[in-house]
Amino acid sequence: MIDIKLLCQKARAASREMSILDPELKSRALRSMARALIKNSSYIIKENAKDVKSARKNNISGALIDRLTLDEKRIRAMADSLIEISKLKDPVGQILETRSRPNALSIKKVRVPIGVILVIYESRPNVTSDCIGLSLKSGNCVIMRGGSDAINSNRAIFAVLNNEALKNKLPEGAITMIRDADRNIVNALLEQEGLIDLVMPRGGESLIREVIRNSRIPVIKHYKGVCHTYVDESADLGMAMRICFNAKVQRPGVCNAMETMLVNKKIAKKFLPDMIRRFEDAGVEIRGCGETVKIVPGMKRADEGDWYTEYLDLILSVKVVDNIDEAIKHIMKYGSNHSDAIVTNDKKAAERFLNEVDSACVYVNASTRFTDGNQFGKGAEIGISTGKIHARGPVGIEELTSYKYVIYGKGQIRK
Amino acid sequence: MIDIKLLCQKARAASREMSILDPELKSRALRSMARALIKNSSYIIKENAKDVKSARKNNISGALIDRLTLDEKRIRAMADSLIEISKLKDPVGQILETRSRPNALSIKKVRVPIGVILVIYESRPNVTSDCIGLSLKSGNCVIMRGGSDAINSNRAIFAVLNNEALKNKLPEGAITMIRDADRNIVNALLEQEGLIDLVMPRGGESLIREVIRNSRIPVIKHYKGVCHTYVDESADLGMAMRICFNAKVQRPGVCNAMETMLVNKKIAKKFLPDMIRRFEDAGVEIRGCGETVKIVPGMKRADEGDWYTEYLDLILSVKVVDNIDEAIKHIMKYGSNHSDAIVTNDKKAAERFLNEVDSACVYVNASTRFTDGNQFGKGAEIGISTGKIHARGPVGIEELTSYKYVIYGKGQIRK
Repeated sequence: MIDIKLLCQKARAASREMSILDPELKSRALRSMARALIKNSSYIIKENAKDVKSARKNNISGALIDRLTLDEKRIRAMADSLIEISKLKDPVGQILETRSRPNALSIKKVRVPIGVILVIYESRPNVTSDCIGLSLKSGNCVIMRGGSDAINSNRAIFAVLNNEALKNKLPEGAITMIRDADRNIVNALLEQEGLIDLVMPRGGESLIREVIRNSRIPVIKHYKGVCHTYVDESADLGMAMRICFNAKVQRPGVCNAMETMLVNKKIAKKFLPDMIRRFEDAGVEIRGCGETVKIVPGMKRADEGDWYTEYLDLILSVKVVDNIDEAIKHIMKYGSNHSDAIVTNDKKAAERFLNEVDSACVYVNASTRFTDGNQFGKGAEIGISTGKIHARGPVGIEELTSYKYVIYGKGQIRK
Repeated sequence: MIDIKLLCQKARAASREMSILDPELKSRALRSMARALIKNSSYIIKENAKDVKSARKNNISGALIDRLTLDEKRIRAMADSLIEISKLKDPVGQILETRSRPNALSIKKVRVPIGVILVIYESRPNVTSDCIGLSLKSGNCVIMRGGSDAINSNRAIFAVLNNEALKNKLPEGAITMIRDADRNIVNALLEQEGLIDLVMPRGGESLIREVIRNSRIPVIKHYKGVCHTYVDESADLGMAMRICFNAKVQRPGVCNAMETMLVNKKIAKKFLPDMIRRFEDAGVEIRGCGETVKIVPGMKRADEGDWYTEYLDLILSVKVVDNIDEAIKHIMKYGSNHSDAIVTNDKKAAERFLNEVDSACVYVNASTRFTDGNQFGKGAEIGISTGKIHARGPVGIEELTSYKYVIYGKGQIRK
C-alpha cells in the first residue's frame, strides 16, 4: 500500500501555500485547465470508452452507464464549469462581519480555506474536474479517490489537469489522485484526523454509511435523494405535467431526479391518466398506491419499500394523498431531506410546504432537477449535503471555506 | 436505564414546533428565566455548595473548584446572559442571500434551526443556563447531560429554568436534562443519528476524544486550549506585561487562558525578569526553556511535554524565540488552534501573525481571555470550536442554525 500518511502530510504542507495563493494565479490555472480539457477531449473520450465497455460487460444499469459516459458535449460542460468557477469572486480573505465592542476591540470574521479535503467518489468522471476546480478556487488542497468503474476516465482527466497545475506552479500536493485500487486505503485515509479536515463521500448509500462509520474526520454527505413532487389541488395541471415529467425523465440516474410523485385526490382523476400515459410512453415503470391503481388500472402496486427507494432509473412511485398535510407527512417520513417540490397556485399552500418540509432545497412550481451547484450559479458542486451542519444543498466554493476571527486591540485586558 | 430513544423522539417532535415559534414568545421566556434565576439564587447557591464540598473532599484543583463555584455575582452574570440573548435579533427565518438565475428562478437561502442539540459537559454549571438560552433563542431543542461533579447545581438551575419554560408554554421536550448517572447513557445518546443533529461535548480532552470515537452524529468541539502570547521585539513592554499577566492570571481554569508565553530574544533580557517576578508574586509557577532559565535563574525547566500542556492552573511555560517565524512555527506545532496573540507595534509582523497562525481567534495587542461568546457580543456561547467545519471560535445562536434553499419558480424545467 502507498504511504497514506506521507501523502496527507504533503497535502497539509501544500495547504499552507494554497491558503495564501494569489487569486489571479488561481484563475489563470483554472482557465488553462479548461483549455486543456477541450484540447485533450479525444484522449479523455478514448479512455472513458474503456470504462463504459467494462460497465456494459458487468451489466450495469442504463442510468449508471449514463452517469459514466463522456462525450464532447459533457467535456465541454466540464470545461465551462472550470471557466465559471474561475470567474467567481475569490472567497479567501473576504470579511464576513465586523464587530466593534464597547471596549474598542475590533473583531473581524474573515473567510479562510478549510485546508485539506478528501473526496471519495464512484462513477461520475466529471466529479474529478469539478472537485479540482472548486478546491483550487477556494484555496484548499484536495485528495481524490475515485471508483474503479471510472478509473481510466479519472486518470485521464487528472493527468490533463495536473499537468496544468504543475505548469501554473501550484504547490506540489495541491491536487492528489489515489490510483492504488487497494480497498484498505479508504480506511487508512479516514484515520488521518489532523491532516485531513473534511471528507466528502459521493456515491451509493452503502459507501457513504461505511465512511460515516469509520471516520473521525467531519463528513459532509447525502445518503440518497428520494425527491418528491406534490401536485396540489390548485396546481396548473399542464405545468404540473411538464415539471413532473422533467423531474423524472430528463436524467433519471442523478440524485435530484424525482422518485415519488404525490397527487392530491381532488385532481387525481383528472391528472393521473394523462400523466401516467406520458410517463409510460417515455418508458417509465409506474408503481402506484391503491388509489392510483384504481384510477389507472393495470400497473404494478407500490409496496412499503418503494416509498423509501431511490430508483436512479426510469421507475416512479405514485401516491394519491388526501391533502397537503398528508403530502408533508409522507415526505418527512420517507424522504431524504434532499429536494422536494410543490406545484400549486395557492400561496398559502406553497408557504406551508416551503416552511414545513425540512429538506435542503424546497421548490414551488419548478423541477427538483435544479438542485445543482452550476444551476445555482456556483459554477459546480463538490457534493450535495442533506445534513444540517456546515453546508446544506449544493456544496460550492463558499461551503468549502471556514472563517477565523481576527481581533485588533490596543492593549485591552479582561476585567 | 431510561428510554433514550423515546426521550430523543420527544425532542425531535418538539423541534418542529420550536422551529416556528413566535420570536416574542421566545424572548419573553428568556426574560422570565433570567428573573427566576435571580429570585432563586439562594436555592441554587445552596445546591451548588454541596457540589463544591464534594469537590474539596475529592482534592480537585483550585482552578477547577473555581469553575464550579457559584455566587450571587455569577448567577447575576448567568441571568444577564439570558437577557442579552433575549435581545439578540431572532436568527430564524433570516434571508441570508437571494439569487436570481437567468431562467428567472429565485433562490433564497433562509436561516433555519439545526434541530436537536446534545450538550455533554463537565463541571461548569453556568453552561446549563447558557445552553438553554442559546438553544431556545435559535429555535433548537437541547438535551443536556452534565457531569456528576456539578450534578446538584445543574439540577437546581434546570429545575428553575424548566419551570419557566412550562409556564411560557414551550413544547414539551424543548429542553431536557438527563439526571440518570449511568455512564452508558452517553453512548446510547451518540447512537441516535436521525434524532439528534449535533453533539457539543465540553470538558476534558479524554471526554471529548471518547465522544468523537463513538459518535456518528456531527460533533463540534475543542480538545483543549493551549493558548499562546508572543511578545514581539517591537512590543510596548508595559502593554505586553499587562496582557500576559491578564491572559494567565485573571481566570487560569478556563480554555482561553494563556498556557505558553513566547518572547523574542531581542527583548527577552529586558522583559523577562520583571514579568516573571510579577507572575511569581501572583503565585504562578514558571517552567522555562534553557534561555529563559539563563536569564532568570532558579526556575523549573520546561520539558517537551510542557509545550503541549493545557495547565488550567497557575502554571506557565515560557520560551525565548529567535523571531516571529519561530514563534509561528512553535504555535502551529504545539498549539490547539484555539486563541493566540501577538503583542507588537510592527504592522507587518501583526499581519503575518494574523494570517499565518491557523487558530480560531488570532489577536494583536489584546488578551486571549476575550475568546468568549459574551465578550464577542453573542450573549453567551454553547461551546468553542477549534475545528473548521460549521463553526469556529465561540458558538452562539447563529452557529446553532443551518439554512435551507427556498426556490420560487413559474414552471421552470431543466433543459
